[in-house]
Amino acid sequence: MTNERVPVGIIGASGYGGVQLVRLLQDHPQVETVYLGGDSSAGKPYSSLYPHLEPFVDLTIESIDLDQISQRCQVVFLSLPNGLAWKMAPELLAKGCKVLDLSADYRFADLEVYQKWYGSERTDQETVASAVYGLPELYRDRIAQANLIGCPGCYVTASLLALSPMLKQGLVLPDSAIVDAKSGSSGGGRQAKTNLLHAEVEGSLSTYGVGGHHRHTPEIEQICSDLVGHEILVQFTPHLIPMVRGILATVYATLRDPGLVREDLITIYRAFYRNSPWVKVLSGGNFPQTKWVCGTNSCYLGIEVDQRTGRIIVISTIDNLIKGQSGQAVQCLNIMMGWDETLGLPKINFYP
Amino acid sequence: MTNERVPVGIIGASGYGGVQLVRLLQDHPQVETVYLGGDSSAGKPYSSLYPHLEPFVDLTIESIDLDQISQRCQVVFLSLPNGLAWKMAPELLAKGCKVLDLSADYRFADLEVYQKWYGSERTDQETVASAVYGLPELYRDRIAQANLIGCPGCYVTASLLALSPMLKQGLVLPDSAIVDAKSGSSGGGRQAKTNLLHAEVEGSLSTYGVGGHHRHTPEIEQICSDLVGHEILVQFTPHLIPMVRGILATVYATLRDPGLVREDLITIYRAFYRNSPWVKVLSGGNFPQTKWVCGTNSCYLGIEVDQRTGRIIVISTIDNLIKGQSGQAVQCLNIMMGWDETLGLPKINFYP
Amino acid sequence: MTNERVPVGIIGASGYGGVQLVRLLQDHPQVETVYLGGDSSAGKPYSSLYPHLEPFVDLTIESIDLDQISQRCQVVFLSLPNGLAWKMAPELLAKGCKVLDLSADYRFADLEVYQKWYGSERTDQETVASAVYGLPELYRDRIAQANLIGCPGCYVTASLLALSPMLKQGLVLPDSAIVDAKSGSSGGGRQAKTNLLHAEVEGSLSTYGVGGHHRHTPEIEQICSDLVGHEILVQFTPHLIPMVRGILATVYATLRDPGLVREDLITIYRAFYRNSPWVKVLSGGNFPQTKWVCGTNSCYLGIEVDQRTGRIIVISTIDNLIKGQSGQAVQCLNIMMGWDETLGLPKINFYP
Amino acid sequence: MTNERVPVGIIGASGYGGVQLVRLLQDHPQVETVYLGGDSSAGKPYSSLYPHLEPFVDLTIESIDLDQISQRCQVVFLSLPNGLAWKMAPELLAKGCKVLDLSADYRFADLEVYQKWYGSERTDQETVASAVYGLPELYRDRIAQANLIGCPGCYVTASLLALSPMLKQGLVLPDSAIVDAKSGSSGGGRQAKTNLLHAEVEGSLSTYGVGGHHRHTPEIEQICSDLVGHEILVQFTPHLIPMVRGILATVYATLRDPGLVREDLITIYRAFYRNSPWVKVLSGGNFPQTKWVCGTNSCYLGIEVDQRTGRIIVISTIDNLIKGQSGQAVQCLNIMMGWDETLGLPKINFYP
Repeated sequence: MTNERVPVGIIGASGYGGVQLVRLLQDHPQVETVYLGGDSSAGKPYSSLYPHLEPFVDLTIESIDLDQISQRCQVVFLSLPNGLAWKMAPELLAKGCKVLDLSADYRFADLEVYQKWYGSERTDQETVASAVYGLPELYRDRIAQANLIGCPGCYVTASLLALSPMLKQGLVLPDSAIVDAKSGSSGGGRQAKTNLLHAEVEGSLSTYGVGGHHRHTPEIEQICSDLVGHEILVQFTPHLIPMVRGILATVYATLRDPGLVREDLITIYRAFYRNSPWVKVLSGGNFPQTKWVCGTNSCYLGIEVDQRTGRIIVISTIDNLIKGQSGQAVQCLNIMMGWDETLGLPKINFYP
Repeated sequence: MTNERVPVGIIGASGYGGVQLVRLLQDHPQVETVYLGGDSSAGKPYSSLYPHLEPFVDLTIESIDLDQISQRCQVVFLSLPNGLAWKMAPELLAKGCKVLDLSADYRFADLEVYQKWYGSERTDQETVASAVYGLPELYRDRIAQANLIGCPGCYVTASLLALSPMLKQGLVLPDSAIVDAKSGSSGGGRQAKTNLLHAEVEGSLSTYGVGGHHRHTPEIEQICSDLVGHEILVQFTPHLIPMVRGILATVYATLRDPGLVREDLITIYRAFYRNSPWVKVLSGGNFPQTKWVCGTNSCYLGIEVDQRTGRIIVISTIDNLIKGQSGQAVQCLNIMMGWDETLGLPKINFYP
Repeated sequence: MTNERVPVGIIGASGYGGVQLVRLLQDHPQVETVYLGGDSSAGKPYSSLYPHLEPFVDLTIESIDLDQISQRCQVVFLSLPNGLAWKMAPELLAKGCKVLDLSADYRFADLEVYQKWYGSERTDQETVASAVYGLPELYRDRIAQANLIGCPGCYVTASLLALSPMLKQGLVLPDSAIVDAKSGSSGGGRQAKTNLLHAEVEGSLSTYGVGGHHRHTPEIEQICSDLVGHEILVQFTPHLIPMVRGILATVYATLRDPGLVREDLITIYRAFYRNSPWVKVLSGGNFPQTKWVCGTNSCYLGIEVDQRTGRIIVISTIDNLIKGQSGQAVQCLNIMMGWDETLGLPKINFYP
Repeated sequence: MTNERVPVGIIGASGYGGVQLVRLLQDHPQVETVYLGGDSSAGKPYSSLYPHLEPFVDLTIESIDLDQISQRCQVVFLSLPNGLAWKMAPELLAKGCKVLDLSADYRFADLEVYQKWYGSERTDQETVASAVYGLPELYRDRIAQANLIGCPGCYVTASLLALSPMLKQGLVLPDSAIVDAKSGSSGGGRQAKTNLLHAEVEGSLSTYGVGGHHRHTPEIEQICSDLVGHEILVQFTPHLIPMVRGILATVYATLRDPGLVREDLITIYRAFYRNSPWVKVLSGGNFPQTKWVCGTNSCYLGIEVDQRTGRIIVISTIDNLIKGQSGQAVQCLNIMMGWDETLGLPKINFYP
């Protein structure tokens, strides 16, 4: 490491993803945030959006001028609604920036799938081909070489960290996997929507996108298929939980070999994540709660086998805004820069 | 009572006030809801806004045609944003309807005060003069004679039910009263606002309108001044609590006679509310929680005297959407129609 | 109906099940609660346990004297921890009372299964054989003839109302059913336990009893097996949600006939529940939230088919303390007495 | 600073105060936690109480042997129920340890007041006289010299940081101060109590200790009286809020000089806290939310003057378990050791 901090910028700093990045980077010893961009809030002090930051952050939100940004920043995080990043990233890359995108724009290798679920018409197949899927636990080596990262979001990260070992090792029947996922309300972002009002969400539990009608289904299936080498179907159901942060996925799949016991699976999972400092595989009989990971970049996995039904059940939990979003991007940045993967990221929750 | 139900209409049925009225009137033995009006949702089945009502309510939202409404309805509830009711009520009254307004439009005897805080320019002093303030515990007799009611909202109802006995009986120093009030998030209504998102409100506690900068201060002061016969100042501070329903006011005032003890005050309060079936004055040492009244039209009062400081402290709690809004309107209607004041209104919470 | 109210007693009135019964029976036009029993609180006014009831309930908790109770009560509800009811019910039955038990004691036809999961040693096979499982939607006719009912609890009721039509009609592969269930904290009862403290539960989401290690698995399987005529395995996982009331089960199963579409299933479910006034099968594309049913005895079902994976997914939600406990017992009582099944039970939630 | 870490121990590590200390000290660059003590859990791995710490803390809880502890620890934190610390601290002090007590045992200069409110009979006036009240913003210099600190708790810290400048500068009428305080549920600790169950607290708001009947009243009054040099009465009312962490005090007092305006007060407060890095006085018109400080050691103050009523209103918020408990103790330790007051303590919340 050098003593000089790497200058970074954030385009789209006003949302929850943006404010997490701003916050995380305050504690990062190797970077300095020098630019916060957003067209609708341009000219306002950042702390007018998040007044608790008044004593700590004195940056002003600037309009988005890619030329300017690329001159001032070595690294740019894009934290925008889907469909905007792909119009900015190529120019930033051409001007020498490393780009980490938090939206869906660079998560899909196949633009047709993207277009089916996200609507935009795109022809930037070449840039897409150069992007790496920003899940370090699966693609660490490729991330280290990349200049453009499409970071996965919260549901997909929690699901894939549970599914990958069992699929990669061929332990379960293809297409038997069911992901019953539960998310806090901050996953919906900071836009004003009636269905995300406190009076609607609090004290209630609901589901949406039942039956494969959710954008995250094809994203999960893409990575699972990539892992096993053929097409995989996954049943994915998201639920909205009356809590702000945290996501928990309960993952079911049918074991090929009904003789496997819990301890076998724990051993396999621990081996799979041997070099992944952020994944904690709990010892037998322990299952994580979302609160354990809130405010951290960790993922905890609890593993069970039901020998009556022949199924493996994995409980996976992350902080949706850190390991499920901004922390993941910082973890990718650490890898891209050759730093320790854990640098500057929070490890332990303040319980309760 | 006759066997024929009174036909009623609700203009502005899409918000929380509207849906409470729809719900309450389903259980009312003497009325039938025949009209639900709202311009922005006109033509939609009401249950498309509140799908849980699909099995119970098959009315369609209609556009607002005052002529039509007055032909079909004997009673009209106005549940609209401030500043709209006063443009509709005169015509409905002229056509023979009884009108109960849930907004601020008919709460102020003095139009100048209204205009200062609510902005509209109005000259309808005559109609305003005919309106009665819809707090039955103070104005029961006038409500019985009225055709136009301006119903007070949640903060003011909770505050006034605590303040009225001590002020009316001259027990406390004028201008010594402080109302520290706490409300659930449903008081903010169903419009999408960033500051009312679940991710903002949940797990946090905030204040707003500190230092008399809140519209409810002049309304509380108007009624207190009316009660005692001279101008009264009240310190009022609202707080937003991470719960959906319920409001609790902690009211402080300095006793004139430091020799009064708690039991004296309880006796005075019980006498004051002798004929008010919805106000429950708790026995000494007991203080209410908001949950006790949620889903009911009750107000519970807990009373204490601190002899060290010479102050009376009253804890007052109501359901902000029932006794603090729609239930109060139904209570007023019961009185206007000569029915029992408790008719059709819920009494006991489903604890917990 | 006669004009005389049926005298009923509740043994074990101090918990959440007890207070729901007390509350529900206040509104029931055909019964009068004349006895509240509990050894540890005997002698105390009931309202000392639930002070919000002070203005409404003036019964004192009495010690448990079965002779006395049977003389005063025609119907007795047992709302006790598991393992106590079976010591009281036979005597009450012998003395002519109808008995509705809310515990697990009379839910299992096979005492061995009960003993394996609940520990007590019992030999009262004869009484057990006379008990009817208190889920009216499945056993309405037998309930009408019974004097002893073992009412199912919240998890099992929500699960079975989702599973029964698909299993009974043979629509799904045996053993393919997975119930991912989510419950509010009141399901844990009113005993002081560290893991149910507000500071532990709020803002978090956890699971327990993963992998078939939960008492409700054999109970669900018993009824499912009874429905189809052979042994059925069900995967059941309970989760604790940071909300007080409500339960939601997400039920997955693999269709035998992949050609079935959502509308077929909705038709089949509606036919199955044609005579069940408390079950509401939503129209296509609608899925219920727990808040919709809180404070009511209703169950809402939302149905989806994922044609990619060949699975049916049913979302089932009830109020865990009403349809999942005390309301169910009152519904059973209505049937036992020949009254309308909906008598005295709440129908519509006060949203939000 | 030297490179060697100071060995510290925590007696009473199993509660929320204990786990906060364990967590905070993990990030402190100058100390190392070498001993965790608790009689009831002795012999258990600490992570069996807090399983999320399994990957981070491998200490075992040990029984309490003061001799042992003093040999291994240079600093001892006592995080025990009231009434136990005073039996241990003298021996630890005698053996050369610095002692920071989180209970009430060393908060009162006058043992009679302590005994009246906390019950124990004590004669250790000499040790008490050597203890310093652990609120650095008021007693920084004395803390620097002390070996025994009695750290104030959450309610008192939030109240005093709001009250001190106005009282010390003689800005308000004596005895006019009212503190309406609101706390999250974690302030009640981790003992299983019915009234702190999630099902009781969530969705509700309650008060307790109304009218001066709360232990914190004499503690607040003691420090206020010390500040102004004569006896001061304060009206203090605590409320329980349905959130886990955070405390907010709304403080009212009558200004002596009604000509003072908000900006005057803000200037005075900022001057008072010029050397207090953890207190943030917000600019005019801004008021803090509890969420802003959760997970940090900061106190935010928002200030208003109501010129109609002549009152100052101060909104004060802290994290009850950090600045209101364990973080405060670490801040005191930093001062006792001559380190920077902010060392190792968290500054910025992860919003939302």
